[in-house]
Amino acid sequence: MSQRITLAHGAGGTRTEELVKGVFLEAFGNPILEELSDQATVEMEGKRVSLTTDSYVVSPLFFRGGDIGKLSVYGTVNDLSVGGATPVYMSASFIIEEGTELSLLKRIAESMRDALRECNTRIVTADTKVVERGKADTLFINTTGVGLVDDHVELSATNIEEGDVVILSGTVAEHGAVILAERADIDIPFRSDCAPLNGLTSVMLRAGGVKLMRDVTRGGLATILNEFVDASGKGIIIEEGLVPIREDVRGVCEILGMDPLYLACEGRLVAIVSPEAADRVLHAMHCHPMGRGAAVVGRIVAQGRAVILRTTMGVERVVGKLSGENLPRIC
Amino acid sequence: MSQRITLAHGAGGTRTEELVKGVFLEAFGNPILEELSDQATVEMEGKRVSLTTDSYVVSPLFFRGGDIGKLSVYGTVNDLSVGGATPVYMSASFIIEEGTELSLLKRIAESMRDALRECNTRIVTADTKVVERGKADTLFINTTGVGLVDDHVELSATNIEEGDVVILSGTVAEHGAVILAERADIDIPFRSDCAPLNGLTSVMLRAGGVKLMRDVTRGGLATILNEFVDASGKGIIIEEGLVPIREDVRGVCEILGMDPLYLACEGRLVAIVSPEAADRVLHAMHCHPMGRGAAVVGRIVAQGRAVILRTTMGVERVVGKLSGENLPRIC
Repeated sequence: MSQRITLAHGAGGTRTEELVKGVFLEAFGNPILEELSDQATVEMEGKRVSLTTDSYVVSPLFFRGGDIGKLSVYGTVNDLSVGGATPVYMSASFIIEEGTELSLLKRIAESMRDALRECNTRIVTADTKVVERGKADTLFINTTGVGLVDDHVELSATNIEEGDVVILSGTVAEHGAVILAERADIDIPFRSDCAPLNGLTSVMLRAGGVKLMRDVTRGGLATILNEFVDASGKGIIIEEGLVPIREDVRGVCEILGMDPLYLACEGRLVAIVSPEAADRVLHAMHCHPMGRGAAVVGRIVAQGRAVILRTTMGVERVVGKLSGENLPRIC
Repeated sequence: MSQRITLAHGAGGTRTEELVKGVFLEAFGNPILEELSDQATVEMEGKRVSLTTDSYVVSPLFFRGGDIGKLSVYGTVNDLSVGGATPVYMSASFIIEEGTELSLLKRIAESMRDALRECNTRIVTADTKVVERGKADTLFINTTGVGLVDDHVELSATNIEEGDVVILSGTVAEHGAVILAERADIDIPFRSDCAPLNGLTSVMLRAGGVKLMRDVTRGGLATILNEFVDASGKGIIIEEGLVPIREDVRGVCEILGMDPLYLACEGRLVAIVSPEAADRVLHAMHCHPMGRGAAVVGRIVAQGRAVILRTTMGVERVVGKLSGENLPRIC
């Protein structure tokens, strides 16, 4: 591990993993944290409670289709939702740079308020800190979410079997492409996909047969699928032609020299579903506004312990985790 | 309210209150958040669960008697504890500046590990973000705590009555004085009081008769007592001669031009206790290492709706909340 923190350590790929394992797991390691899931399901007095935390440092604070406030609510709601939990309560903590305009904070707080209503959750405890000019970048927000997991929900990588299908809820890479395009001052015709997934996960869980879900955030689809491989010990084959990507997003990615498979979404999920339940789950997803573009994009294979992309030309190549790329402050 | 955020908005006094009420309560307001307590007690499936969140931005990161890591564990444990909850789980989120040394992160993570063991709690979910050089000040940590509140615990400002006594668990102002002295490069013979209060609150609650507790943090004893006044509608008389302050702390405060009543502690609490329980609670506190210096420092009066300090000269003066002072990044 290098001796100083680089931006790659925050990008959600292999360097982040090194940092998390080498420093934080090393110190705090316990069976729950070691699952390295985006949320922890713990028992409290006989109830299954889910906890998740995220600090939001996105830059710019406002972008096409969203802002740091919305992101801080949706992101935490989504982490709970893909863990099979119903979001109930949230905490919020604000680190504000001296000199920040109050009107900007108000706009962001109002955006959070709207997002909270949309997700049917609320902030019950909060904190505010101010640091000197130049010691933070306007505003960072932490939200921590608490959810309840229904008794019948059983999501675990250990249930994944050969033949299970990989379902993606919609087009990928919009959020990441929007952030990068805005930083590069490129005009774009599309918006961030940032949105809450709690409604969608709830209809999917009701349909049954869902074995594991993740929201496709830092590191993009390629990284998340690799994490599925790590957790399950199985391989995944993805059909490139089936992964939905908007043409204009693909175009911007080409200009920016980015592979859309590594760009973050903030309102998409990927699920591993048993083959017999696939049609039922897909139907349920298509009936929900957040899952209209849902599609089977691949399947689980016994061999490989890797993510294989089968291109439209029929060529197969291994797709690794995001590694060393400079994609800071996407969320 | 001024149009831009100043450091005073983060100091825990009246400006912080303006910001919280004017921006965040305005947007997120709900009955639980409106209590403006440092923790929220909510019901989840019939159980009373306590939630609290804090971002730690203390500068310097290491100080006599502690560091940001210890503080981030103790502070959150203490917020739960004074709310009558037993800390159970914690989340941690790290915002790291590019270029930060890994060895520094490791030292801080190890310090958190030791503090977690001491408090008998654990981190079950975590997050790491990296921002560019110059966009944060080395490291900010958010911790959010989840605790369980026993059925028999009933802490509320509405129970406060005339004649109740004010008990302080020990000397005040050490933490704040250490931070300010280190920034001013003044040599000091004392250490921060930062320490966990969960053991102490647990023996106090067992003793019975405790109506309300708070840890004495940002804004110091004077501000916290004023918040008791706001919440209860009663007045408080404090005997200056009874408030324990180390002589060397008093000396440093004089050099720095600070009133120790407004300086933060990170391991002290103040409690309102019914008069008939006072001896019992004090005895229980004196038997606990964190409460050896506990003392009655004042009492609740019906009139006034203010905090009155009776000086050693017998003069009475109103002591307001911290207002406009520049005490940023104490925790």
